[in-house]
Amino acid sequence: MTNPVFELYGFWRSSATYRVRVALALKGLAAKEIQVNLEDGEQFAPAFLAINPQGTLPALVQPDHPPLTQSMAIMEYLEEQFPLPPLLPAGAHARARVRALAASMASDTHPLIVPRVRKYLTGPGGLDATAWRAWQTTWFTRGLQSMENRLYADAATGAFCHGDHPTMADICLMSVVAVAKVFKIEVADIPTLDRIIARCNDMEPFARAEPALQPGSPREI
Amino acid sequence: MTNPVFELYGFWRSSATYRVRVALALKGLAAKEIQVNLEDGEQFAPAFLAINPQGTLPALVQPDHPPLTQSMAIMEYLEEQFPLPPLLPAGAHARARVRALAASMASDTHPLIVPRVRKYLTGPGGLDATAWRAWQTTWFTRGLQSMENRLYADAATGAFCHGDHPTMADICLMSVVAVAKVFKIEVADIPTLDRIIARCNDMEPFARAEPALQPGSPREI
Repeated sequence: MTNPVFELYGFWRSSATYRVRVALALKGLAAKEIQVNLEDGEQFAPAFLAINPQGTLPALVQPDHPPLTQSMAIMEYLEEQFPLPPLLPAGAHARARVRALAASMASDTHPLIVPRVRKYLTGPGGLDATAWRAWQTTWFTRGLQSMENRLYADAATGAFCHGDHPTMADICLMSVVAVAKVFKIEVADIPTLDRIIARCNDMEPFARAEPALQPGSPREI
Repeated sequence: MTNPVFELYGFWRSSATYRVRVALALKGLAAKEIQVNLEDGEQFAPAFLAINPQGTLPALVQPDHPPLTQSMAIMEYLEEQFPLPPLLPAGAHARARVRALAASMASDTHPLIVPRVRKYLTGPGGLDATAWRAWQTTWFTRGLQSMENRLYADAATGAFCHGDHPTMADICLMSVVAVAKVFKIEVADIPTLDRIIARCNDMEPFARAEPALQPGSPREI
């Protein structure tokens, strides 16, 4: 299949947008990225709700099809339609391992530190800046250390989270790491992850997807 | 493939365990369920960490294979290995729609109301019981109303979330509804979802997966 005219609605520091940005790049697919400012609430503007009535990022749009939403669903779609290079390994158990690692980032870690949660906790929730910072740090730390616990002694771990090629697990790991970096949160005692993160950072599809390099990012972060 | 000897490590009111319980039942697969008490922290006991070093539920264990973890990954595995009846529709765009709806429950809604989040917010977070209740109610309400917004005017919505057969989207919807019921939280203005929920409740695989019917549940909830 040739590269469709993809439009990716995202936000410079959105972890979920990052995942799709990297998946497209790893598969050599071009997309025009359109910024939707989550801080300003642009995801709830009528223009964007017409694309995704759920008001969440990212959305991947191509002509003559309904918009695709939710980063994990979009990555599975890209994997089905553009199988090479694969982002899931061969073998049902290996795929289950990669999807589980990906979910431990995308479902167990990232949802706790998104803007809508911060707005609630620092608004009606009554957390001050220090308490919010402690919350953020707690979940980044627990999430990444939990993934380290799973990876370090597992023979299926290779140069990447699964074997020697990047998969959805690496994309989801890096999507959390990218946002931790934006907020200058460092997590200790994750040597296996640190090695994998360095390996990913050496690859252009990951390096070019960095939040700081996207349109809309502040000059200094 | 014949039914392997599955052991499902779960907790009676765990939303993620519920998903796997229903997926197995819809596919006619038997599993022995083993309770891991999340309230007592049994997921961090050495016996369970040997099964899942990440200390999360559920885990699906079968002989001669590494344990499977993360409900979405397990459902995808079951779909690959036991394709009938399908829990994903035919067609890449239809599958992407179902996976996105599933993720809006499993990734955007459920992670915010799990026991570890409650323990943090009512401990170091300083929320009292009323503030915790407001938090819970907020995310159940926003999650379900957001899904309603997506489904009600969409021609792809049928008797179920997608067409006229249950999919992963219905399983994830019902997994959130089941936990809302445990906590006696009612969400208004979701007529499309209410219709789908009633339809699912009429099916034995959903009805028998109810938290209240599982071992370990209190007599009255």
